[in-house]
Amino acid sequence: MIAVLKHGTTPSQMNHLIDWLKRMNLEVHVSQGQEITILGLIGDTSRVDMELLSSLEIVETVKRVSEPFKQANRKFHPKDTVIEVGGVKIGGGHFAMIAGPCSVETEEQIIGVAKAVKASGAHILRGGAFKPRTSPYAFQGLKGEGIELLLKAKKETGLPVVTEIMNINDLHLFNDIDIIQVGARNMQNFDLLRELGKTRKPILVKRGLANTLQELLMSVEYVMSKGNENVLLCERGIRTFEPATRNTLDLSAVSVLHELSHLPVVVDPSHATGKVNLVPPMAMAATAAGADGLMIEVHNDPAHALCDGAQSLTPQQFDDLAKRVAKVREAIL
Amino acid sequence: MIAVLKHGTTPSQMNHLIDWLKRMNLEVHVSQGQEITILGLIGDTSRVDMELLSSLEIVETVKRVSEPFKQANRKFHPKDTVIEVGGVKIGGGHFAMIAGPCSVETEEQIIGVAKAVKASGAHILRGGAFKPRTSPYAFQGLKGEGIELLLKAKKETGLPVVTEIMNINDLHLFNDIDIIQVGARNMQNFDLLRELGKTRKPILVKRGLANTLQELLMSVEYVMSKGNENVLLCERGIRTFEPATRNTLDLSAVSVLHELSHLPVVVDPSHATGKVNLVPPMAMAATAAGADGLMIEVHNDPAHALCDGAQSLTPQQFDDLAKRVAKVREAIL
Amino acid sequence: MIAVLKHGTTPSQMNHLIDWLKRMNLEVHVSQGQEITILGLIGDTSRVDMELLSSLEIVETVKRVSEPFKQANRKFHPKDTVIEVGGVKIGGGHFAMIAGPCSVETEEQIIGVAKAVKASGAHILRGGAFKPRTSPYAFQGLKGEGIELLLKAKKETGLPVVTEIMNINDLHLFNDIDIIQVGARNMQNFDLLRELGKTRKPILVKRGLANTLQELLMSVEYVMSKGNENVLLCERGIRTFEPATRNTLDLSAVSVLHELSHLPVVVDPSHATGKVNLVPPMAMAATAAGADGLMIEVHNDPAHALCDGAQSLTPQQFDDLAKRVAKVREAIL
Amino acid sequence: MIAVLKHGTTPSQMNHLIDWLKRMNLEVHVSQGQEITILGLIGDTSRVDMELLSSLEIVETVKRVSEPFKQANRKFHPKDTVIEVGGVKIGGGHFAMIAGPCSVETEEQIIGVAKAVKASGAHILRGGAFKPRTSPYAFQGLKGEGIELLLKAKKETGLPVVTEIMNINDLHLFNDIDIIQVGARNMQNFDLLRELGKTRKPILVKRGLANTLQELLMSVEYVMSKGNENVLLCERGIRTFEPATRNTLDLSAVSVLHELSHLPVVVDPSHATGKVNLVPPMAMAATAAGADGLMIEVHNDPAHALCDGAQSLTPQQFDDLAKRVAKVREAIL
Repeated sequence: MIAVLKHGTTPSQMNHLIDWLKRMNLEVHVSQGQEITILGLIGDTSRVDMELLSSLEIVETVKRVSEPFKQANRKFHPKDTVIEVGGVKIGGGHFAMIAGPCSVETEEQIIGVAKAVKASGAHILRGGAFKPRTSPYAFQGLKGEGIELLLKAKKETGLPVVTEIMNINDLHLFNDIDIIQVGARNMQNFDLLRELGKTRKPILVKRGLANTLQELLMSVEYVMSKGNENVLLCERGIRTFEPATRNTLDLSAVSVLHELSHLPVVVDPSHATGKVNLVPPMAMAATAAGADGLMIEVHNDPAHALCDGAQSLTPQQFDDLAKRVAKVREAIL
Repeated sequence: MIAVLKHGTTPSQMNHLIDWLKRMNLEVHVSQGQEITILGLIGDTSRVDMELLSSLEIVETVKRVSEPFKQANRKFHPKDTVIEVGGVKIGGGHFAMIAGPCSVETEEQIIGVAKAVKASGAHILRGGAFKPRTSPYAFQGLKGEGIELLLKAKKETGLPVVTEIMNINDLHLFNDIDIIQVGARNMQNFDLLRELGKTRKPILVKRGLANTLQELLMSVEYVMSKGNENVLLCERGIRTFEPATRNTLDLSAVSVLHELSHLPVVVDPSHATGKVNLVPPMAMAATAAGADGLMIEVHNDPAHALCDGAQSLTPQQFDDLAKRVAKVREAIL
Repeated sequence: MIAVLKHGTTPSQMNHLIDWLKRMNLEVHVSQGQEITILGLIGDTSRVDMELLSSLEIVETVKRVSEPFKQANRKFHPKDTVIEVGGVKIGGGHFAMIAGPCSVETEEQIIGVAKAVKASGAHILRGGAFKPRTSPYAFQGLKGEGIELLLKAKKETGLPVVTEIMNINDLHLFNDIDIIQVGARNMQNFDLLRELGKTRKPILVKRGLANTLQELLMSVEYVMSKGNENVLLCERGIRTFEPATRNTLDLSAVSVLHELSHLPVVVDPSHATGKVNLVPPMAMAATAAGADGLMIEVHNDPAHALCDGAQSLTPQQFDDLAKRVAKVREAIL
Repeated sequence: MIAVLKHGTTPSQMNHLIDWLKRMNLEVHVSQGQEITILGLIGDTSRVDMELLSSLEIVETVKRVSEPFKQANRKFHPKDTVIEVGGVKIGGGHFAMIAGPCSVETEEQIIGVAKAVKASGAHILRGGAFKPRTSPYAFQGLKGEGIELLLKAKKETGLPVVTEIMNINDLHLFNDIDIIQVGARNMQNFDLLRELGKTRKPILVKRGLANTLQELLMSVEYVMSKGNENVLLCERGIRTFEPATRNTLDLSAVSVLHELSHLPVVVDPSHATGKVNLVPPMAMAATAAGADGLMIEVHNDPAHALCDGAQSLTPQQFDDLAKRVAKVREAIL
């Protein structure tokens, strides 16, 4: 971290600041020019509050040279992390197709969709039991019962399952779930992240609607700093001014995250676009961009799905998409 | 709610849809033109999933005529809600100045600031005990101990207090807190909101960084639909492309929220701008825009505050601001 | 277009409005319910000012059913437009690779890059002569001289050329240019667009940094309504809150534009990302998303380029990318 | 400007870079630490392309210490600029109320509105003759005839006038116009700005929908660097995700611009909000925030205005607003 001092800073002011920085266990390297004086702070600067430092009267500007995240940082862990669940690998060259309905609705529905997507080559089954909905009057998911139905589908098909947690008090229901998802709206629910860090379950963390990639990696740090290194990142669109899509899928995120971090990156084109006809092209684009996996909504009766039907593929559409994605995947290897 | 059917919809398709809508207890009013057929849906459309309806093959477009929120809606509650805590009123013409440090740090600090802001005319004391921080390595607040210190300051000065909750499992610590704050990052932590709806404490809900005003009102609906009508709204800046300020304070929100809702609207210029020199002009602007209260960060030693020092006023600066705000308040009455 | 009237509108108010609408040559279809009255406006509603209509006291809400653009609209022109320059086709299944330096700098540079990208399979040469720069103190391009050098490179290699116009008074310099580009900052320079509509040159219009896809199509309408149907659309990233990339490349734009319009869609990953390492993955993603062409910056000495060196590939990097793009292109056919 | 070199940079690489920087007339101050080497660049760094410098292989990061704009910079011109037209002063403590219709429509209309707003205390008359409209099919203004009508209103009332230019070829029509406006869509039409810099007319430059405040100051630099120092800045709302208002008025811009620049700052709440009921509160908020002037749309028959009727006040509403603004203005002095 570098701090540039203002012209006119007195030696005693500077020494006062240096003492304060040294008390934070930082080594301070001073380089004094005629016009500006620069302090190079060496050591663990992840605890330094940049805004606080910037606010000091004698400080002109502050710049981080190194990233404030550690566990997720590729610099300290150059090799790709590979997450493995139920024999399925994600990351480090392994590509996973995650598919299933937005919400678990009935036993028939979830098992039907599970069998269909498995037949089309999906590796992991998704299905929501706890559903974060903007309106308290909308369907909120089958909750515990939804988890049970999802586990029946797992048993029936052998597919590992991923589903979202909204409240840490429900954790006991997730014992047999393979991957626990933290939704976009909870990406900065730090208490939830911290508690999930105490488990050893793979945690898939979705990027928040208005969160930077660095903030995503800082949130993941809440999980990893508690000892759980099984983390997957998920890009699902950000909020912009464009109304043609529900959100704007930021596919540069795949490369940026791969550069900054060793964690696998999954892309969810269904929630990002909110429109069934945009899901296949965006799924193929994400694959070409180097994503480690896709998360696709599939429903046997999208027009009557209890939530997000507008963005769900039919099993037939998914089957076609899976084949096209496989061809793109081959083309980029 | 209005649904426009596509040209070419057959009568049987239309009747199928109408039956489905009627099963949701809606009255359906058909108006058939040569080119387009329009269905007017009358009744409680807050349960209707607009995206689902839009996704049906025969539907061209869907438009809500009425807002999807009810309890917070001014249409059903024309009179301003007035929140009262410890003899202080907010809303309906009553203006409240909320001030205090970002974080509670020591007994000396919080009591010192409390006395100072009270002397300058503040009505309510703020101070964070549980602090949501982007980094797990940053100071996370004194937690339970911070609540105790805040309550000491309340006892000492008589000022009612407001502080943030991050985890519903901490609720027992908030028994003597006057207003419970839900932070921007938890604005869509629906489980937390629902549980707070079961209390009868005033809840101050901050707008999320990327949330629309309608989403803010829908989140508040989670609290109110459980029976707690003591809610305050807070505008604290949204995330945009502009780097000169931490966030962009959206002051139009004050008027828009007053028009849509009967709840009081408080503005927090400290978090919005992140810069001490922008706090006074934005505080005065918010007052002129008709805000029911302000939330201002004040610290006796901003340069050494444990968090957000860059945006904290000194007690002297606050005293000056309070006088200037009072003059603006008078000018608009 | 549909206008919903407010409850309580009197028949005379309604008739007054209907008369006014009829004077705009619209047919008005009234459907009167108990609670709401709906007017369906049929005819050329592209001249109707929606905000004006919404502002009338008796109008609750207004909604467009059809898009306000005509010439670019796929509904009235279902077949893909194919643009042809110098034997190169773009659109309707024809994919074009456009490559070259950000700025034309010297004869040696532009001819060198032109030969290199041709050898790697590029179809069209790009190179800026007039450069829109944020700062008046930055290099503004070689202007007329740059155009001449570009035309030399065209002559030398046979590649058609594309370059940006900033001022309609320079149009006489573009006689031998094959495609005239309108940059993102001029997307709503309506006078420039209108004048270019009077030529019959292919015009490539880049999406503005904060413009919706509908606005892009409306801008193109300025060109097409003057009789020039040779238009190409270009997605080059939009401005969002994310700092990791210069802009956020919105690849959903490719599908959305293809759905709404018959015009070819080109993607520029170089300007969108601003970083050389992000160009190849985003170029491949754009190809997989179905783009009709790519626009890639290539420079023989990127580190010393006079502008935008940070995002330019070397000829070797471009050669590698061209091969990988070709494989993705094959995979999606 | 500061450049941090990567760990492992060789002395010869570093000297190569230093030579290159010195050739740009910069003084280079090297401070070598164990881990990092920092170059301080002193001199006129406004010509240095930051992205180019950042892209060099040996450079870790680059940071500007000083702003890239000069003429508009308060550092080099601490005293407020005061613009004077027809006896009216703006800036440096002088507050101007600019009012009038969106478009000039008829002689009767513009003279009627001019007299009305003058009677209510307006200092300057606004009225559009050249109108930038998203759609080529919408009313584009009366153009030359509109300018003539505006000048008649000027003659009749004595009010100085401001109107927008869209095309530099129309400049001869603006001889008797007092302030020439550059609209938000042309904020980065650099050729237009440069040409206006050659006149000595006051130029009011509106902030683009997606432009940062620094970019606004850089655009103004195009005007000022040609010798025209009569510039006014105008905040008129930025594009965000919030649909409740047409744009989001960024009132922090007033203080930020005042701090960075000596130029007067005018606020346009009419275009920003797009809704008549939001204009008065935002006008008062802008005044309280310290704006040097307001630009308010007033129409004698807003419901039938040819453009933007939704945001126009009636003369009576304006009269009321002018009184309330005056009270706020008094309160902040």
